[in-house]
Amino acid sequence: MTDPRTELARSDIENFHAVALELADEARSIIRTMLGTGFNVVRKPDGSFVTGADFRVEERLRELIEKRFPGHGILGEEYAPRFPDAPFQWILDPIDGTEEFVQRLPTFGSIIALHYRGLPVAGVIDHPVLEMRVSAAYGLGTYRDGSRVRLTDSDPATVSGSERVVLSARANFVRHRDHGRYFDAITRTFPNHRIYRSCFNHTCAVIGAADGAVDYDNRIWDIAASRILIEEAGGMFVTVREDDLPGVGRLYGTVFGKPAIVDRLVTLLK
Amino acid sequence: MTDPRTELARSDIENFHAVALELADEARSIIRTMLGTGFNVVRKPDGSFVTGADFRVEERLRELIEKRFPGHGILGEEYAPRFPDAPFQWILDPIDGTEEFVQRLPTFGSIIALHYRGLPVAGVIDHPVLEMRVSAAYGLGTYRDGSRVRLTDSDPATVSGSERVVLSARANFVRHRDHGRYFDAITRTFPNHRIYRSCFNHTCAVIGAADGAVDYDNRIWDIAASRILIEEAGGMFVTVREDDLPGVGRLYGTVFGKPAIVDRLVTLLK
Repeated sequence: MTDPRTELARSDIENFHAVALELADEARSIIRTMLGTGFNVVRKPDGSFVTGADFRVEERLRELIEKRFPGHGILGEEYAPRFPDAPFQWILDPIDGTEEFVQRLPTFGSIIALHYRGLPVAGVIDHPVLEMRVSAAYGLGTYRDGSRVRLTDSDPATVSGSERVVLSARANFVRHRDHGRYFDAITRTFPNHRIYRSCFNHTCAVIGAADGAVDYDNRIWDIAASRILIEEAGGMFVTVREDDLPGVGRLYGTVFGKPAIVDRLVTLLK
Repeated sequence: MTDPRTELARSDIENFHAVALELADEARSIIRTMLGTGFNVVRKPDGSFVTGADFRVEERLRELIEKRFPGHGILGEEYAPRFPDAPFQWILDPIDGTEEFVQRLPTFGSIIALHYRGLPVAGVIDHPVLEMRVSAAYGLGTYRDGSRVRLTDSDPATVSGSERVVLSARANFVRHRDHGRYFDAITRTFPNHRIYRSCFNHTCAVIGAADGAVDYDNRIWDIAASRILIEEAGGMFVTVREDDLPGVGRLYGTVFGKPAIVDRLVTLLK
């Protein structure tokens, strides 16, 4: 089967990438303003936090997308899907790492992606406080704050366990099912790990500051930008697990980064 | 035995705190300049990184301390101790989290502390890229960027395991001896953990963004500022292990943060 993205004109892809960056600008501006003025914080039924800023950012991005691309679908963390069967789908996590945002730790971020027939066309992860951003589009490469990013693979023969791996907290591996053994296997094999938070973990892998990354039992909006960001940088992205859990929804287990490290991590998750 | 710090005049303590802040300003300025101009990176015999910036910052801080307090001792990560028997000891880690610094991840920082007869009088952790700083002095309180920090304890009866705990990577628990079981116990009991890096972990605990922290098998300069920062904020700091390993030197295992969480963490490390 041909990759459906080859149907898209380069000028359209450039435009999608430019719009994704505009959306990230808008999200950053709202978030920085609300960090100054303050915001409400409530707990969702699943125990996670949500703030007035999450809602405000997603509302505004939806408005902008509906105006630019009236026929496109939108799937966001905080509101109901729009046109779930449309070929183009914008996937939004207005604030990923809301716990960090609430604590005013700067590693949270906004995730914005456009998928076409299930495959990513453009993606942005933006860290408003760090003023740090990665973006990519199909065939156009990956950028960190506008400069091209190219990952250099590790030599598979010299993988020693001292490589830098970022992963989800153990909470992700045990929240919905008893998969703590995978957390244990990864942290034992790669003891030089960091655990930031979904989107900052991903940014570290995209820029090569981490050699490999594991994001476990997360939602589509957590990972929607990362495949295009990694692949356009020359790295590898593997979905090792994709399960529909009753009462929970679809959860993804993904591994990505430098191919030699991804290979080892995928083995640990088998 | 009386706390020897009660011998010190308040005006002297205020002066020590002010000088520690000046040293942090100087370190921040050098680090930000060198991030712009670039720096050499080499591996130390133990495999860890050191950069031209580590040396430059420590040299400059030593110069300033020697000028201000000619009789004080200085213990820094990169150079030989000065006056190791003096009652006042400045303890310096010019760049803690050098791996992060090399990767240009913003969670590294400078650690500056003054101890008097073995007890901390003043301490600063400064994050130059985040423009974030915590500081404290004996009897004067703890400050985040100049604003007073006061930790609120958790209720011991409601400690559920969902609290936020920051800890060292597993590498710290297994590098010198086989203490991985402590890493496993902490990550199982408190699955909502983060693993940043020594000094950013500490900052999170000081400002209450983490409820508890464990720093395992680290050196005196990694933890020298943290006890005064935590205690002056109303938290608890416990040294659970202090061992001289042949060929390695003295290593500290420390637990700190909100007292109810510290109690639970100390139990896990027994």
